[in-house]
Amino acid sequence: VSAPQATYVHLGRAVRRMRQARDMTMEELADAAGMHLTYLSDIELYGRNLTWDKIAGLARGLGTTISALAASAEDERRRDHDGEAVQS
Amino acid sequence: VSAPQATYVHLGRAVRRMRQARDMTMEELADAAGMHLTYLSDIELYGRNLTWDKIAGLARGLGTTISALAASAEDERRRDHDGEAVQS
Repeated sequence: VSAPQATYVHLGRAVRRMRQARDMTMEELADAAGMHLTYLSDIELYGRNLTWDKIAGLARGLGTTISALAASAEDERRRDHDGEAVQS
Repeated sequence: VSAPQATYVHLGRAVRRMRQARDMTMEELADAAGMHLTYLSDIELYGRNLTWDKIAGLARGLGTTISALAASAEDERRRDHDGEAVQS
């Protein structure tokens, strides 16, 4: 039993995409999620292996749920692998 | 902008519920997720503030996605708050 999973790099990209879709600045989201701007920037650009609580804070700041944020990360993963014959 | 979020206690309950729905033992899931049985037991009973990678490992072991696991955690949260007038 196994399913390909989005990585935390995809999670970071999903955060960025959802933030931009909401016309939020990084400052606004960092504020809403209670994290430093530099940390949010790292998350969006490189990904970080965030804990559930931090993911919940980001989701809350985006006005969405963890499941919706994770689904968006899975979309990012699909974008990555579209057109490739990847098993991963 | 804010949305109520499932906590990691709800995540642990969701793992247990999905594992049982699949007729998997804790041993089988711990094996599939590459974690110790005692750690999985802690997660299911008390919750742990897991990182994205560990959540991905559990989802993979359950043959599901992180978003589906998170949605199940949100169901657990709703079960908790049903009938209560909670704002949280």
